[in-house]
Amino acid sequence: VLVGLSGGSDSVALTHLLLELAENADFTVVALAHLNHQLRPSAGRDEAFCRDFAGRLGLRIIVETADVKKYAAAGFSIEDAARRVRYEFLERAAGGALADRIAVGHTQDDQAETFLLKLMRGAGLTGLAGIYPRRGRVIRPLLDVSRADLRAYLTARGEAWVEDETNEDLENPRNRIRHRVLPELDRAAGGSTRGAIARTASLVREDGQWLDEAADLRFGQLVVRTKIGLEIEAGGLEASPGPVRRRVLLRAMRQVAGDREVGLEHVEAVEALLGGPQQGGIDTPGSRVELRPGKLVLIEQRPVIR
Amino acid sequence: VLVGLSGGSDSVALTHLLLELAENADFTVVALAHLNHQLRPSAGRDEAFCRDFAGRLGLRIIVETADVKKYAAAGFSIEDAARRVRYEFLERAAGGALADRIAVGHTQDDQAETFLLKLMRGAGLTGLAGIYPRRGRVIRPLLDVSRADLRAYLTARGEAWVEDETNEDLENPRNRIRHRVLPELDRAAGGSTRGAIARTASLVREDGQWLDEAADLRFGQLVVRTKIGLEIEAGGLEASPGPVRRRVLLRAMRQVAGDREVGLEHVEAVEALLGGPQQGGIDTPGSRVELRPGKLVLIEQRPVIR
Repeated sequence: VLVGLSGGSDSVALTHLLLELAENADFTVVALAHLNHQLRPSAGRDEAFCRDFAGRLGLRIIVETADVKKYAAAGFSIEDAARRVRYEFLERAAGGALADRIAVGHTQDDQAETFLLKLMRGAGLTGLAGIYPRRGRVIRPLLDVSRADLRAYLTARGEAWVEDETNEDLENPRNRIRHRVLPELDRAAGGSTRGAIARTASLVREDGQWLDEAADLRFGQLVVRTKIGLEIEAGGLEASPGPVRRRVLLRAMRQVAGDREVGLEHVEAVEALLGGPQQGGIDTPGSRVELRPGKLVLIEQRPVIR
Repeated sequence: VLVGLSGGSDSVALTHLLLELAENADFTVVALAHLNHQLRPSAGRDEAFCRDFAGRLGLRIIVETADVKKYAAAGFSIEDAARRVRYEFLERAAGGALADRIAVGHTQDDQAETFLLKLMRGAGLTGLAGIYPRRGRVIRPLLDVSRADLRAYLTARGEAWVEDETNEDLENPRNRIRHRVLPELDRAAGGSTRGAIARTASLVREDGQWLDEAADLRFGQLVVRTKIGLEIEAGGLEASPGPVRRRVLLRAMRQVAGDREVGLEHVEAVEALLGGPQQGGIDTPGSRVELRPGKLVLIEQRPVIR
């Protein structure tokens, strides 16, 4: 196992817990991996802390410096760019260290915050799923553990960690959810709500995964590729239940759209076309969708280079 | 259509909108129905407002007074008792007025608040579904409309409504969500989040309905009634995907439990038993569940009267 280490309480506790578990289990911690993303004034301090931490534990540490802002300039938000750069680095580091798994320190708190972030952005179709406990070789052993418990564990052991000073910035949506929304929800509930929200996120994720599988099956039955895009059998699509129909449409539209963003509003526009009184067509990101006798035709539209 | 009227902005706007629609549509508003639940000091004022309102519109109004506190004493929360008493009254009033439908004034705001209430209470299995746009003869035409829009509509028409003074009480969880949690979520999102949350609630409800249907089918295949309770074929249950397995178990356990409350934690305990290394049994609300060769046995446990 390679451990992704930021120097914060979550990943520091994760390292200690994995080392403890490894004493009686069939795995070893082969290395730590720290990415210096140069986004905060404290980035140098964090790197020094991580190097020192690895030295004290006698563990190998792989460190890389990345230019997240430059990556973001290609059309990503800073948060999204940082995530992509981090996982690309972790995959590379795991390859170099011959690690089978990459452990990262996401907690129940992260799960609850992510769920609320996606909820407020209206991610109802596939986006509400939350953080996966395991995806590829990335594992998240702390996803059911609260940050407060991890900090209590570290404090009891006399262990230090670094604090991210930007965590206090309430202009950042995630921080506002952490410091304002969740405490108000806790007050309404008369106790901590993170566990309940995280558990709901897991259930919604599992429901969604199963619906995705059902939709994949239906997709294979109804959709055929053509020279100009895709064709979907209209009768079969209309006869499918809403949750499956919407997922088949989303998948088809995303395939034709390339890297353009297709959202629920576009899926709903095509559903309206499908259920509407007459034939016609609409433009959606990267494609034109036309209702013809017995079929829905998705025509790929590539941007014209002038 | 019979309209449930509290005197608040939502139901007053609903009445006006239905009367407007009825001019060009194939329905009529046959009566209003107001329940005086005697829970607030202003209950008498609200009743007088509603009687006057009906008189001005020339509509019949059916009024009843209920003792919600007495009903709640049978073992319900005040909120739950008020809801039950209200719908029992509306069904009765609709019967008397020969109405085919009962229209009630739930808005997008109610939908978003209910979703967050259920989320914070951990209702992940069947409870996250939110408010149904139509159930039996109850219809909710305003479920996609915001309260702010309804009030703007009333204000533009010079129409009055009554304010529920207890809406300001922040000890009430729903009010705290309305006045504290949602505004903080709006700040995090940089705009109103009610629409996004309400839309997500609709999608989650449709996903859940379809999964419930799939689970009903599987229930019919796997579950048989016995003299002492129910038996479930263990192999078929284990082979079912998680979303279906949990729903089959919940339905079976609720059937055996009678009116005792079965929650996700009980379903998860039975899943652990099912996936565990040896046979054994656990006690759940109203039943004992035992894993025997090839089957799961749910034994009804009736309380002993001493």
